[in-house]
Amino acid sequence: MRIALLGGTGDIGEGLAVRWGRDTDHELLVGSRDPEKARAAADDYAGTVADAGGDATIKGFDNAMAADRADVVVLAVPPYHVADTVEAVADTLDEDDVVVTPAAGMKRDEDGFHYNPPGAGSVTALVRDAVPEGVPVVGAFHNLAAGRLADLSLDLGIDTLVVADDGDAAATVSRLAEEIEGLRALSAGGLANAAEVESVTPLLINVSSNNDDLHDLGVRFE
Amino acid sequence: MRIALLGGTGDIGEGLAVRWGRDTDHELLVGSRDPEKARAAADDYAGTVADAGGDATIKGFDNAMAADRADVVVLAVPPYHVADTVEAVADTLDEDDVVVTPAAGMKRDEDGFHYNPPGAGSVTALVRDAVPEGVPVVGAFHNLAAGRLADLSLDLGIDTLVVADDGDAAATVSRLAEEIEGLRALSAGGLANAAEVESVTPLLINVSSNNDDLHDLGVRFE
Repeated sequence: MRIALLGGTGDIGEGLAVRWGRDTDHELLVGSRDPEKARAAADDYAGTVADAGGDATIKGFDNAMAADRADVVVLAVPPYHVADTVEAVADTLDEDDVVVTPAAGMKRDEDGFHYNPPGAGSVTALVRDAVPEGVPVVGAFHNLAAGRLADLSLDLGIDTLVVADDGDAAATVSRLAEEIEGLRALSAGGLANAAEVESVTPLLINVSSNNDDLHDLGVRFE
Repeated sequence: MRIALLGGTGDIGEGLAVRWGRDTDHELLVGSRDPEKARAAADDYAGTVADAGGDATIKGFDNAMAADRADVVVLAVPPYHVADTVEAVADTLDEDDVVVTPAAGMKRDEDGFHYNPPGAGSVTALVRDAVPEGVPVVGAFHNLAAGRLADLSLDLGIDTLVVADDGDAAATVSRLAEEIEGLRALSAGGLANAAEVESVTPLLINVSSNNDDLHDLGVRFE
């Protein structure tokens, strides 16, 4: 399978690229607005995977070309860039693709981080509204600490929550998630349930910052 | 220590009563608007603890009398009864008490459960606004499945998140939480961070209902 990581030069893109690179045979397409940066990141990630004993196919492209070549397109961009990133690649998306959104809207004040969804109700809903009609959207990979994901020496042992209205797309993304060693995919239901999933992201930051010896937290449902 | 469980005839009250009854020596005061129901529930819970080999002091009172006698007052009532329960016991609360709120506002639709906070921003904030000035408020015990808590044959192995603006009150409640076997208390910061904590309650229900073999879920931060 071909997986595009749009905005893949960022930290969540790096984490997913090196995990999939080490743990699967999927072809990974790092996307960026700047294809030079994408190629440099792809080489860097391939090096990280090789250092961990893996052998990954990771290439860099501009976002639209990465999306065009991919079966699964991950929007690994900050929440305020989600809408314009979808717009920039919309022509390349069709019903056979799956668009995956891991972003959560947050604001920070003196108390900590707070969930701050866009007007659509969640970043996931914003993506659903932005993609061409018929393109399946899946929310997943929200609650993974990027630094921990990118450090291949660390075991995960955590869950990721998947929301989707399209059962086949949900199954595809859940399977991709579980191919990452130590990651379990759990369904949180339809796209309408995305806000509660995205809310866990600021919560994890607050819990990490208020407890000594805890950092880069993930969550496990037990 | 004396712990009042207002609305303690309900399921979260039962769970906390039997866990503290079995695992600690605290005196437990089950409160209800109907003191007869409170006494019947207290006897029932004491029987459950005795069946598990414990020896608990659990008594029933009307809510105001339970609150008056207690050091820690847990508002174990549904979110829509939180404000009037606080009002009913407000005269009994002072700065030496600690008021604990475990409730989360939720609404349900065809997709699942959704976080639905009151106008104050969270149930915790509503309690903070409702108690007499100077009475410390702590949010805790939101994310515990009541049925699992009440079944003493089940191990917990999960976390509870604590939010508070008063450090001493937070420490008291965290200690009480950790006296329950298998429960770890983690700070999620100040009361302003309560919404993200309360949001986990509908999420747990959605995850339970969308995954076979998972039910009565708790959460662990790892």
